[in-house]
Amino acid sequence: MKPSLGVCYYPEHWPEALWETDARRMAEVGISYVRIGEFAWSRLEPTAGNLQLDWMLRAMDVLGRHGLKVIVGTPTATPPRWMIDKHPDMLAVDRDGRSKGFGSRRHYDFSHLGYREESARITRILAEALGDHSALGGWQTDNEYGCHGTTYSYSPAARDGFRLWLAKKYGSIEALNQAWGNVFWSMEYNSFNQIELPNLLVYDAAPAHELDFRRYSSDQVAAFNAVQYEILKNRRPDLPVIHNFMSRYSEFDHFKLGETIDVASWDSYPLGHLAGSDEAAEHKALYMRQGDPDNAAFHHDLYRSVGHGRMWIMEQQPGPVNWAAANPDPLPGMARLWAWEAFAHGAEVVSYFRWRQAPFAQEQMHAGLLRPDSEPAPAYGEATRVARELAEIRLEGTASQGRIALIYDYESEWAWEIQPQAAGFTHGNHVRELYSAFRKRGLDVDVLPPSTSSFAGYDIVAIPALLAWTDSMRDAVAKFDGHVLIGPRTGSKTAHFSIPTRLGPDLPQNLLDARVARVDSLPAGIEVAVKGGGAARLWREKVEGSAEIVMEDVEGLPVLLCQGKLFYLTASGDQALVQRVADYLIAEADTPTLALPAGVRCRVRGQYRIYVNYGTGTQTLIPAQDEVGYVLGGATIPAAGVSVARCARAD
Amino acid sequence: MKPSLGVCYYPEHWPEALWETDARRMAEVGISYVRIGEFAWSRLEPTAGNLQLDWMLRAMDVLGRHGLKVIVGTPTATPPRWMIDKHPDMLAVDRDGRSKGFGSRRHYDFSHLGYREESARITRILAEALGDHSALGGWQTDNEYGCHGTTYSYSPAARDGFRLWLAKKYGSIEALNQAWGNVFWSMEYNSFNQIELPNLLVYDAAPAHELDFRRYSSDQVAAFNAVQYEILKNRRPDLPVIHNFMSRYSEFDHFKLGETIDVASWDSYPLGHLAGSDEAAEHKALYMRQGDPDNAAFHHDLYRSVGHGRMWIMEQQPGPVNWAAANPDPLPGMARLWAWEAFAHGAEVVSYFRWRQAPFAQEQMHAGLLRPDSEPAPAYGEATRVARELAEIRLEGTASQGRIALIYDYESEWAWEIQPQAAGFTHGNHVRELYSAFRKRGLDVDVLPPSTSSFAGYDIVAIPALLAWTDSMRDAVAKFDGHVLIGPRTGSKTAHFSIPTRLGPDLPQNLLDARVARVDSLPAGIEVAVKGGGAARLWREKVEGSAEIVMEDVEGLPVLLCQGKLFYLTASGDQALVQRVADYLIAEADTPTLALPAGVRCRVRGQYRIYVNYGTGTQTLIPAQDEVGYVLGGATIPAAGVSVARCARAD
Amino acid sequence: MKPSLGVCYYPEHWPEALWETDARRMAEVGISYVRIGEFAWSRLEPTAGNLQLDWMLRAMDVLGRHGLKVIVGTPTATPPRWMIDKHPDMLAVDRDGRSKGFGSRRHYDFSHLGYREESARITRILAEALGDHSALGGWQTDNEYGCHGTTYSYSPAARDGFRLWLAKKYGSIEALNQAWGNVFWSMEYNSFNQIELPNLLVYDAAPAHELDFRRYSSDQVAAFNAVQYEILKNRRPDLPVIHNFMSRYSEFDHFKLGETIDVASWDSYPLGHLAGSDEAAEHKALYMRQGDPDNAAFHHDLYRSVGHGRMWIMEQQPGPVNWAAANPDPLPGMARLWAWEAFAHGAEVVSYFRWRQAPFAQEQMHAGLLRPDSEPAPAYGEATRVARELAEIRLEGTASQGRIALIYDYESEWAWEIQPQAAGFTHGNHVRELYSAFRKRGLDVDVLPPSTSSFAGYDIVAIPALLAWTDSMRDAVAKFDGHVLIGPRTGSKTAHFSIPTRLGPDLPQNLLDARVARVDSLPAGIEVAVKGGGAARLWREKVEGSAEIVMEDVEGLPVLLCQGKLFYLTASGDQALVQRVADYLIAEADTPTLALPAGVRCRVRGQYRIYVNYGTGTQTLIPAQDEVGYVLGGATIPAAGVSVARCARAD
Repeated sequence: MKPSLGVCYYPEHWPEALWETDARRMAEVGISYVRIGEFAWSRLEPTAGNLQLDWMLRAMDVLGRHGLKVIVGTPTATPPRWMIDKHPDMLAVDRDGRSKGFGSRRHYDFSHLGYREESARITRILAEALGDHSALGGWQTDNEYGCHGTTYSYSPAARDGFRLWLAKKYGSIEALNQAWGNVFWSMEYNSFNQIELPNLLVYDAAPAHELDFRRYSSDQVAAFNAVQYEILKNRRPDLPVIHNFMSRYSEFDHFKLGETIDVASWDSYPLGHLAGSDEAAEHKALYMRQGDPDNAAFHHDLYRSVGHGRMWIMEQQPGPVNWAAANPDPLPGMARLWAWEAFAHGAEVVSYFRWRQAPFAQEQMHAGLLRPDSEPAPAYGEATRVARELAEIRLEGTASQGRIALIYDYESEWAWEIQPQAAGFTHGNHVRELYSAFRKRGLDVDVLPPSTSSFAGYDIVAIPALLAWTDSMRDAVAKFDGHVLIGPRTGSKTAHFSIPTRLGPDLPQNLLDARVARVDSLPAGIEVAVKGGGAARLWREKVEGSAEIVMEDVEGLPVLLCQGKLFYLTASGDQALVQRVADYLIAEADTPTLALPAGVRCRVRGQYRIYVNYGTGTQTLIPAQDEVGYVLGGATIPAAGVSVARCARAD
Repeated sequence: MKPSLGVCYYPEHWPEALWETDARRMAEVGISYVRIGEFAWSRLEPTAGNLQLDWMLRAMDVLGRHGLKVIVGTPTATPPRWMIDKHPDMLAVDRDGRSKGFGSRRHYDFSHLGYREESARITRILAEALGDHSALGGWQTDNEYGCHGTTYSYSPAARDGFRLWLAKKYGSIEALNQAWGNVFWSMEYNSFNQIELPNLLVYDAAPAHELDFRRYSSDQVAAFNAVQYEILKNRRPDLPVIHNFMSRYSEFDHFKLGETIDVASWDSYPLGHLAGSDEAAEHKALYMRQGDPDNAAFHHDLYRSVGHGRMWIMEQQPGPVNWAAANPDPLPGMARLWAWEAFAHGAEVVSYFRWRQAPFAQEQMHAGLLRPDSEPAPAYGEATRVARELAEIRLEGTASQGRIALIYDYESEWAWEIQPQAAGFTHGNHVRELYSAFRKRGLDVDVLPPSTSSFAGYDIVAIPALLAWTDSMRDAVAKFDGHVLIGPRTGSKTAHFSIPTRLGPDLPQNLLDARVARVDSLPAGIEVAVKGGGAARLWREKVEGSAEIVMEDVEGLPVLLCQGKLFYLTASGDQALVQRVADYLIAEADTPTLALPAGVRCRVRGQYRIYVNYGTGTQTLIPAQDEVGYVLGGATIPAAGVSVARCARAD
Repeated sequence: MKPSLGVCYYPEHWPEALWETDARRMAEVGISYVRIGEFAWSRLEPTAGNLQLDWMLRAMDVLGRHGLKVIVGTPTATPPRWMIDKHPDMLAVDRDGRSKGFGSRRHYDFSHLGYREESARITRILAEALGDHSALGGWQTDNEYGCHGTTYSYSPAARDGFRLWLAKKYGSIEALNQAWGNVFWSMEYNSFNQIELPNLLVYDAAPAHELDFRRYSSDQVAAFNAVQYEILKNRRPDLPVIHNFMSRYSEFDHFKLGETIDVASWDSYPLGHLAGSDEAAEHKALYMRQGDPDNAAFHHDLYRSVGHGRMWIMEQQPGPVNWAAANPDPLPGMARLWAWEAFAHGAEVVSYFRWRQAPFAQEQMHAGLLRPDSEPAPAYGEATRVARELAEIRLEGTASQGRIALIYDYESEWAWEIQPQAAGFTHGNHVRELYSAFRKRGLDVDVLPPSTSSFAGYDIVAIPALLAWTDSMRDAVAKFDGHVLIGPRTGSKTAHFSIPTRLGPDLPQNLLDARVARVDSLPAGIEVAVKGGGAARLWREKVEGSAEIVMEDVEGLPVLLCQGKLFYLTASGDQALVQRVADYLIAEADTPTLALPAGVRCRVRGQYRIYVNYGTGTQTLIPAQDEVGYVLGGATIPAAGVSVARCARAD
């Protein structure tokens, strides 16, 4: 699919007289896709059963006349006020037991089957009414599932659903008691109807109780989506059904939800994401107008995987947002850079949020391509430029397969949140740190699900901080002939959140003869230096076995072990150690790298290598051996600059 | 009114045999006013309807015999326990939905009409019984409205009242939906009865929803006061009705409440106020025994304005208090300095809290003029000295009009709390920073309400960070021939919390040709230096238009613009920048200043200029040109010292 | 009783086939005592009335066959799930009003009389069934009363119990109103039935209200224990009834509970305790693998006092735990050092928690003597060594009486939490700081209850930060001929939480002519240097009277006063000041000291002085004059080392 630009538009916010001008100007910018409708339920059905779809059809008419394709969002993220009267118990309940009411958005409980039926109903109505419109380009289900902490609800509906889910999973209460280890503190149940949700307890619930509740809740999000998907897909099998995800959000399993979408899109707000992250203050200051240089890329690669190879940016930051503690203006050029980077990572569409800044309501300080007075904001010109450049360069295919694969696993995120043992130890941090370390060497990285059954085609596969092996992944490791990096904590549990019989990392001796005899978790701020550079922090394991010692720390504990091409990292490291380990694997695997200036990153798509400069100063690129010159920019790349080199041999 | 001293006294706390001695000693100190009764309901009416007013009359007899005037407080801040049985739903509900019970004070909901009637009833009873007592000198309504976060209640009573208030304000639900921008996320209502309070939501409520709830809640406080005012005023039109406000408290609109009082009094606890403020740790350490050198003065000027020119200190800190995290002893002399400063700013009465330290209950560690063992505490002697000095110097009139006016607006406080866009950006901070900058130059500042319709008589008017213009204030600016400083963020919204059509600062082009095209909010700790000195922090605007650039930052953004005598500040500044801007305006307006030593401040009242030294060392004053010598102290002013100079030509 | 080792074991967690091997290996280690059963209710009574005690008898048979004695814990800390169906209102309610449910442990309300009867029932059943078993060595009641904040419940049951308790204590509501000072804010009650618990108020409750609620809650814990004690003691008067307490836990009065136990045991988890404490970050880093050098010792001495001279460690940390933010591995040797130190302070049994690390449930990351795969963990060998050493050295008697006595008072902990006046000022910190200061001089310290009526035999008695005198303690001071150190804040209140008539420290003039005229509390970070060294922090008093000034600060305020052998400290000090004051008293009392290297501590038991090295480096001991050589280790003591010297003349 030809890379194109899009924009998010809310015809219901503006006088109908303005639509035509807006559509014309969108076309002038070079926009191809317009997302509409995802918050419009109160205008589509102002009172129960009183459907008002005409205005939406007229809006689609106008947009279609200017050659724009429309993505219609189902409006289920914002049920209207009358819906609460109809289903008073559809509101979700927070961990403190408080029902969260109407007045903002996402005020519904994924476990509430009555609302799930309402969601199907409005989806059927829209599918029916709009499905044949010539401007229709696809569908979006709901919006940002889980945003504002809405994946988990501690309601009666959730409790009832959880009991049924558990009964189905375990068959007998004895099996559940055994799996959860309920004998531990007399937590044994006599029947499934005695099980409560794991909130408002005196102390920690059993970790398997918590983990199963997260799995259950994640499944409800997926089930909610599947209902809409089936309706929309049946109506127009030729059009993509998309969901729009978020950044660094892991409360439900996106790979599982990905089973009922055709394209994964996500919200790229680099400045707000960095501001809200746990990065160091210095790093935040350095990149406050650009965003973290690896965060958007990581999510491009993650969601391309969630979308089975198809990825969009449904909401691209165009200027300051309204929702971080502070909301700086991006560096001039970033709205262009972010789009180019997304395309480099395989994006089909980059859609700016939003067309015109709304002067009212919650997001009135969120920039758009237009200002509230309809004058062009800075991103207007940047988007226009991107559209022109895309037309000239004609990217094709999608992002090329990387040489590095990283496993990202939502259950592992949940597990280490439930039982961190070292405050600050997370699965995602390990994944992102390795992602960044490989990427700084100019290497393309793919992010794969834990269901991956073959690593063929990769030089290196990394599986850090994984909760538990599946048989298929253990097999994939066994049969892979490249280099594998696992640990720390990988394979340290069973799927029922217990320590495996042969202890972590729980691999057969012929693959890796190593057993974690003890974990030494370290308070924040304490480091143990590693001989040769870098340091262990937060997590250290004392490992037994015959695996060869590659690195050790100053106290003599092994840090990196290997057996054949399988490497085990026993500690979580500071940035220097993670980089050293990545570099060691790269050298072992003989994978060629690039020498990138600080702040510069790149990605290959088809026959092009796209460079972006996240730094605040101009840098000079050293052309890679496979490059034959630039089709955009050049070796001198300014702050927020983009250079596109043509490669002699692609893929 | 002749400046005098007062004291807070609780006859119900002490054996009746002690009253006579206490009254005699009060008279010896030189005290004229005694406030009593404001927490005594359980003694005035021990069970419902069982009135016991005799003891109070006897207490007034005793006080009156010693020439003391009594201010009677209505006891409505502490409804007795039996009242809760009578009105179980009169308790307020906090933002988390929890009802806050009996056992401390202020346990009532301003929206509860049943309690409002009880409040009228006890007020009528007191007015009737005590209104003709010869010792009666005035009334106080309730005490410290809003203290302990009691302005806002999320109760059914508040919800019902809010719906009625909205229906009255908007007339139709369509008008409300339009005003709040409810189309944004399908937040549209079909009727007023669907509207809930803006708490316990999934995410932010519409800002206009929040703002209207604050306006509603503020109006309930005013309505509660109006009921008492009418009763008391009707009974004795000749006596003042007073309410006693707090420091840095902005949850209701004090100017609106001021419509039903004759005198605004407030609680001056300089040490506790500084300890609880967001001032820098260094500043807090420097002034921990004196209080912030500008905070009390600011509130004197604010409440003089709230009280239509009449201001008292109803509670003056006499020593350590009990309610801050740490409660240091004031520097010897501060109990005198604070009183003198209050008189300089126009106080009619400075009343110490309290006569004798209570050895029991919540405030047993709060100092008084007497210790619990009835021995004099240090402030006893300081108060005696102030009384003697007042008798000698005979201040007259009230505080002279300043040359500088500052607009302080409660709605603007609420607005930027609701939607800060830059964490830490507040209206009040901007006002106080400017206040301090002008005051350090020896200039008297008046604090005016947003309803001000004329700035005649001022050299400079500053209107920082104002939510929205009223027509009258826009007119006042237009017709004023002095210098005006506005911004940042001033006029950036309409009264319905939307961005105005012509963007901020929303003034006609002939007044100021400037439009805020973009806001660049900065994380705490990030600064952008301004050429010539100072730095922008938290807030920066990119402004278009033809206004002249007076200052710009190192990145080339205009910081101070002007058009004629109207100046627009585009950023919030550090202390150096705020001082530079104030100094620039002073120079432009050709306003004469004084060279005050560090820590020294002054205020003119009538023919006297009163100097106070908040510093910890002795300073030397440079006499101003209009001074003809000292009537108290001299050019050498020690720590905690007071010097009073006579001016050749006053007012 | 001969010092011995123990271990905590959960036969219900393991296949019965494993019990025999486990018991054999326990005996091989040299273990004598095995605690079982305290969390096993769901296996003892899987459904209501369905008793299954056979497995427990079989487990006791197996353990007994290997010479092990069994401590049976009543399982009341973990009522099974069916109990909640039977008594839905037995769940405790937290301060926010939320009921805390089933799914972890300690889910019961001490005020719930129905559950108290269930607790008696299961205790009777166990007593009956197991009381004659030959392996039975004693009983433990419940486990860790109060853990996870469970002492205080804000339930209807607690409210009702509190009202009865108050009615009994005060007799009339007038007496209560008087005692609490309820006149203060019209808080007066007309009947006991109007009194609510002191949570969910608008502002602070009366301090006496809070204090009485704490006393009431503490009494319920004691009453709960007394029920079990009576049953168990009646069944086997010859066997000890033990309760297992925690570290730095003060929510109920352990001395009062101690009236119904024979032995006080406690949980010694030095690393987790230090990590969770408010010690400085530097101190935490230095001792992160050893624990605070004085914390375990302090609790040994405290619980020896609670247990009327009899003290056990029921749970001794054997390796990393699971419940701190970070859980480092102890230094090799610490599992031995901690045991030796406990024995030095009089422990009869040191019982490691737990035998084998459980691979499932909440504590799966908590180390044991065995790993989950049944291989020995490091502490296995250390325990074996301790058992061998104990057999060789044969400690006898208990810890010798110290020369220093310190009063520790739970009510004083509550009082200063309720009304700190200086944030950070606590009773316990003062006690522990003095404890450490004396102990660093090699002096043995006894920790005594506030009911102590004679100080005979001590050189020095310290009574810091005591809420209120009892007559018996005032008498004990009066008749004591050693040196006494009191203050700051000691005697500053009456038992009803009021300032005493003669002001603090409230001693007769012939004992100490001093009155606290004013308190000057200081913000954290502010210090006032004391002439000669050290500084006052947090708390300073201005004291009147004729007592002699021993130390004063740079501002001229007296810091240490004395009258005869009675010393009054007017300020809370930094470590240097506390050490100076302790040293001054030691010198005045002419008490001989030892010169201990940094990190080294010691305690005398019978004829032995046991040295332990908490430091990370080797140190050299200087033999004390009474020592005649080492029976374990020597003058050179490595990190985590133990040396035992024989003393020429003991006791």
